[in-house]
Amino acid sequence: MERITVTLGERSYPITIAAGLFSDPASFLPLKSGAQVMVVTNETLAPLYLNPVRAILEHAGIIVDQVILPDGEQYKTLAVLERIFTALLEKPHGRDTTLIALGGGVIGDMAGFAAASYQRGVRFIQVPTTLLAQVDSSVGGKTAVNHPLGKNMIGAFYQPASVIIDLDCLKSLPPRELSSGLAEVIKYGIILDYAFFVWLEEHMDSLLALDPDALSYCIRRCCELKAEVVAADERETGLRALLNLGHTYGHAIETHMGYGNWLHGEAVAAGMVMAAHAARRLGQFSADDLLRVTGLLARAGLPVAGPEGMAPEEYLPHMMRDKKVVSGKLRLILPQGLGKAEVRAGVPDDIVLASIADCRT
Amino acid sequence: MERITVTLGERSYPITIAAGLFSDPASFLPLKSGAQVMVVTNETLAPLYLNPVRAILEHAGIIVDQVILPDGEQYKTLAVLERIFTALLEKPHGRDTTLIALGGGVIGDMAGFAAASYQRGVRFIQVPTTLLAQVDSSVGGKTAVNHPLGKNMIGAFYQPASVIIDLDCLKSLPPRELSSGLAEVIKYGIILDYAFFVWLEEHMDSLLALDPDALSYCIRRCCELKAEVVAADERETGLRALLNLGHTYGHAIETHMGYGNWLHGEAVAAGMVMAAHAARRLGQFSADDLLRVTGLLARAGLPVAGPEGMAPEEYLPHMMRDKKVVSGKLRLILPQGLGKAEVRAGVPDDIVLASIADCRT
Repeated sequence: MERITVTLGERSYPITIAAGLFSDPASFLPLKSGAQVMVVTNETLAPLYLNPVRAILEHAGIIVDQVILPDGEQYKTLAVLERIFTALLEKPHGRDTTLIALGGGVIGDMAGFAAASYQRGVRFIQVPTTLLAQVDSSVGGKTAVNHPLGKNMIGAFYQPASVIIDLDCLKSLPPRELSSGLAEVIKYGIILDYAFFVWLEEHMDSLLALDPDALSYCIRRCCELKAEVVAADERETGLRALLNLGHTYGHAIETHMGYGNWLHGEAVAAGMVMAAHAARRLGQFSADDLLRVTGLLARAGLPVAGPEGMAPEEYLPHMMRDKKVVSGKLRLILPQGLGKAEVRAGVPDDIVLASIADCRT
Repeated sequence: MERITVTLGERSYPITIAAGLFSDPASFLPLKSGAQVMVVTNETLAPLYLNPVRAILEHAGIIVDQVILPDGEQYKTLAVLERIFTALLEKPHGRDTTLIALGGGVIGDMAGFAAASYQRGVRFIQVPTTLLAQVDSSVGGKTAVNHPLGKNMIGAFYQPASVIIDLDCLKSLPPRELSSGLAEVIKYGIILDYAFFVWLEEHMDSLLALDPDALSYCIRRCCELKAEVVAADERETGLRALLNLGHTYGHAIETHMGYGNWLHGEAVAAGMVMAAHAARRLGQFSADDLLRVTGLLARAGLPVAGPEGMAPEEYLPHMMRDKKVVSGKLRLILPQGLGKAEVRAGVPDDIVLASIADCRT
């Protein structure tokens, strides 16, 4: 079992990584007998994990309610969020309740924002079941829902009480979802850790084959990196913005294509290639490194170009709604070689447009 | 001009109270030329205040957008909240925007929650135009929308950057709204300040006649009391709960009757009388004090009984969804004589029911 701490003063919390956590009652401590919890999950995951998790909790004397949402990014809306509040109020759950987010990034983001907002804040536990949620979205307290005009535009910084990562979940993950998670994994290598990028080049086949040791190391390393960044800059005033490599382009793809048509990691993969092209055009990223990035993403089963038929000009209005825009000026995350990145304001529009055109299919 | 500070470390902020603030550009400092703001107001207030406020801001070089919501507690919903986000994204507004809540408690609660949630948090300024918002809801950072199953169930603790109280607003306030605000004013006397209660008994006629000196003193005293309570207990782990005197009963009335049919202060007035009856039945509130409370509320034009036809049993399910419920146990705010109150758990259901029956019309 691996245990990492996200260090945030009195809001610090542990990330536990191991196989078989869902069959170990200790996983969900410090929930105590008599406590009330609401498990938030979706229609795809409920048949796989809900009963074992309920059984473990109920065995410990915990009162378990559940709300099962439809599956998909297109349901990450205020309207679907309201269903969580309705479920909580129907029972009713008090301020001392705990929400358990059992699912991928969409469930984690929604249950987290529901926990931040229900009665102005209740406790929640992240139980990520996808690679993407395990390595990225479940750690660090970013919660949100989408708006038709922009992804993750409505939300809160709100930290979980703990993160419980059961490696067994990945056995039933569809290959496209695994690849989507690998996009965020590769991102850490590009922006923060060249040695990890090299490790990924060496172990991509093992990861795709779900080798337990490779997965365990990979998830731990990503969580370590994320925990360090979040501890240093919880509310994204600086360093944390680097974790958005590829996301400004990627969110434009997700919003333009309709939420759920491109998986988040797929859009981020294409976006990272675009950012690499922008960096190359600005003279801070070599053609060799660009080939290594596109090569590794492609091996992970990810797109390295934007959607067919989406013109470069169609990216810009979406990109201007990015949360990193300040005083109407776009700020992009750009790699500076492999293992290092920067937040860069004032990249000219023609470079941005060219970087997108560089990646058209 | 009166100025009070709400002391919350780096999130401290000023409350400014005076006549004529809307015609003084200095009121909206530290907004600077080039800043982007979104004024949130409603259909009733827009014709009264929007143009002067816009003019002052635009004169200072600030870029002003506006969103005008329908007027009434029944519109304090997630669906109407989404209109604020849409207005922000259509322009688009970045993380460096400022929301200005120009209105009563409903506008302040909604614009505040929108500010807490838009891009995970932007700045906002409270500009309360009703007595209720000026003495209570605009100060202290409680923001929320309602759910059909419970009032203020979805929200955040999120402090404004400043509170601007222009006393001239009260000249155009409908009498029923003035009375509603006086309910919260009288509340401060009952729970925290006997001398202020006596002052209110002596000056109620002046307040109802909108005497400027009386209003100015009254609003300042309420803001001082609220600022002290909030500074001591921002997130309502103890002392702050006292500000909810009458609210557990009152929220039940508002929810049962349909939001907007009883004004918030009207429901709180009836609820305070019920709480006083419960306290009397528990031997901690005299019949004389009860008469003084009902007498003062009645003079302020407020109901001292619940809605006709709402049976005591109909209050309880709503009351059990109160945010002060812990482990399924109701906690009530009860006065202990005039000027002092307590949070009390374990009040027997029959006392609660009897306290409601004591106040039936």
